[in-house]
Amino acid sequence: MQLPSHGSNPHHLYNALGINPPEKIVDFSVNINPLGAPEAIKHNWGNWLADIYDYPDPTFAELKQTIAAKEGIEESCLLPGNGASELITLIARYLQGKKVLIIHPAFSEYEAACRSENCIIFYHILYPSEWGMDMESLQQKLKTADAVFFCHPNNPTGMQYDRTTIDWLIGTCEQSETLLILDEAFYDFADNPVTFIDEASQSPFLLVLRSLTKMYSIAGLRLGYLAGHSEVLTEIGKRQAHWSINAIALKAGKICLDDQQHVSQTRDYIKKERDRLFSFFRETGFQHSPSAINFYLIRDPSMDDQQELFTFLLRKGIVLRHTYNFPGIEGEWLRVAIKKEAENSLLMEALSEWKRVN
Amino acid sequence: MQLPSHGSNPHHLYNALGINPPEKIVDFSVNINPLGAPEAIKHNWGNWLADIYDYPDPTFAELKQTIAAKEGIEESCLLPGNGASELITLIARYLQGKKVLIIHPAFSEYEAACRSENCIIFYHILYPSEWGMDMESLQQKLKTADAVFFCHPNNPTGMQYDRTTIDWLIGTCEQSETLLILDEAFYDFADNPVTFIDEASQSPFLLVLRSLTKMYSIAGLRLGYLAGHSEVLTEIGKRQAHWSINAIALKAGKICLDDQQHVSQTRDYIKKERDRLFSFFRETGFQHSPSAINFYLIRDPSMDDQQELFTFLLRKGIVLRHTYNFPGIEGEWLRVAIKKEAENSLLMEALSEWKRVN
Repeated sequence: MQLPSHGSNPHHLYNALGINPPEKIVDFSVNINPLGAPEAIKHNWGNWLADIYDYPDPTFAELKQTIAAKEGIEESCLLPGNGASELITLIARYLQGKKVLIIHPAFSEYEAACRSENCIIFYHILYPSEWGMDMESLQQKLKTADAVFFCHPNNPTGMQYDRTTIDWLIGTCEQSETLLILDEAFYDFADNPVTFIDEASQSPFLLVLRSLTKMYSIAGLRLGYLAGHSEVLTEIGKRQAHWSINAIALKAGKICLDDQQHVSQTRDYIKKERDRLFSFFRETGFQHSPSAINFYLIRDPSMDDQQELFTFLLRKGIVLRHTYNFPGIEGEWLRVAIKKEAENSLLMEALSEWKRVN
Repeated sequence: MQLPSHGSNPHHLYNALGINPPEKIVDFSVNINPLGAPEAIKHNWGNWLADIYDYPDPTFAELKQTIAAKEGIEESCLLPGNGASELITLIARYLQGKKVLIIHPAFSEYEAACRSENCIIFYHILYPSEWGMDMESLQQKLKTADAVFFCHPNNPTGMQYDRTTIDWLIGTCEQSETLLILDEAFYDFADNPVTFIDEASQSPFLLVLRSLTKMYSIAGLRLGYLAGHSEVLTEIGKRQAHWSINAIALKAGKICLDDQQHVSQTRDYIKKERDRLFSFFRETGFQHSPSAINFYLIRDPSMDDQQELFTFLLRKGIVLRHTYNFPGIEGEWLRVAIKKEAENSLLMEALSEWKRVN
């Protein structure tokens, strides 16, 4: 049985498991803003038809200006891409054949892309359920690593580490001349976002990866960017395809970044729902990761492998994200996105039912 | 002076040359269908807003089915991509460090992508104004080449070679075990299209590259595909980013491929305008390449370098494509897209004026 390696597109999952999908499916496997895209996207959609006919600007000039102004860094410290996943393949190409450490559990694309480029991969595992860094062991591993990937806040746990911990990681990487790739794809969902984009623009040993597809709900359009030292980015960007970002993503990206009200409304909504869900889990005896963002891990502590719960929910049309391809937690947890209030309530009802029959 | 390496986005060109762009600009530097996109794109545009929120299908299943059915080849012989340019970077990565022959003049991205992958590049030049293949010399070069790029019909000349010539090229490449990349980006603009996609699906030494952005006027969305032997494509596709094609391009691609009336209307229109333009050039003493498709090369035979004519037209808001980065014809010709009747007439008026004052 080969399960899909990512969330979203749940029909692939039902096919793989041989389960007939019920009529109504609620997809908790994809970590996208439950409030959807900014209103301005919908208002402008009609006008953007005119932009599909001709080539997009291959220099991404306007988008780069907007990001640089918002983040307060130079345009030369930015490399926009066709989704964060394109940037991950470009980083992997840059690291070809090198020794790459991945702090797991983590987004599976780091490893997939680096393996395709014949990197030597090794792991540092954040052990459940504290998800602690184990600095001493990590420091030893960093001494021999050319690069290290860390997803922060972490995917799949949703955990945000304190600034001191990440400062230590950045400092240790600088000492050992290890390139740290800090994936901040979800940083803006946190109540108190922690970011290191300023530090990245000044250091040849730090890259910060950002995504616009989660907060602004434009995963179908593909848009992300990399922040770092201009010389490192020039080298990484060398292999980017010409016109890599489509014209609609370029337009939408600018509009999204201008709408910071959407971000603050999202944070408030996510916090309220997260508090409600976590109270429910405590009351009903589900274990959860201490997430600070828009998704979390859960498990029924009476079982090691959560497959039975996973398929119980699938049959009800509730699609969570399996964790079989997350080293360190393989199958022992399930990842869940925070969705709209009614959908989260639906999940809680189904989990209550699970508890009644098990 | 650094001129842009591609057509389209003419403001970059005006900036580079320090010319104030006039109010009205007609861009002949980009080879896109003058009839625009199929009507069905416009009709469906409103519905596609719903597709931007979630991730696109990373397997491109529906699009692959549509292409496979239309071309009569297996889905496993297809690799769709984020525009032909993404596929060119993936081919270049596959050819990393290898010896690559480019039949010039040709689209500049082959060389740019292969240089980024440390390929050893060498040239075979189609000499103006016959643009003949010079088979003997080519055969010698193919003996030492790992791969060869040929754009057919050719960009920038627009020339379509006869089937026998290309059959010879395919056979010679098979004998010398040279991977031939046949770029058919413009094949469908020809009155009598010549394609080798069937042969590609069966041979490990032939790849056919296709673009949907020119014929269907969706350059802003980015969409192309590669046809070839399934094992070769699996290897090339390994380094493709996940979710590389955006959701709108996936929808639009399917609709475009279903609209073959658009293709035949386009061919008729292009043929009529091409005949009209070529008559005018013969009458007024401009030299042109014997194009079979939607663009051509011209020159005023009284000058070696065409820069003066190029800037004369730019000042009038008529933007042609310079050829300084096309080896074999550097600056001695100008590339021109066939546009709508009124725009082509505008060009002819300006060329008449040029003749009067020169």
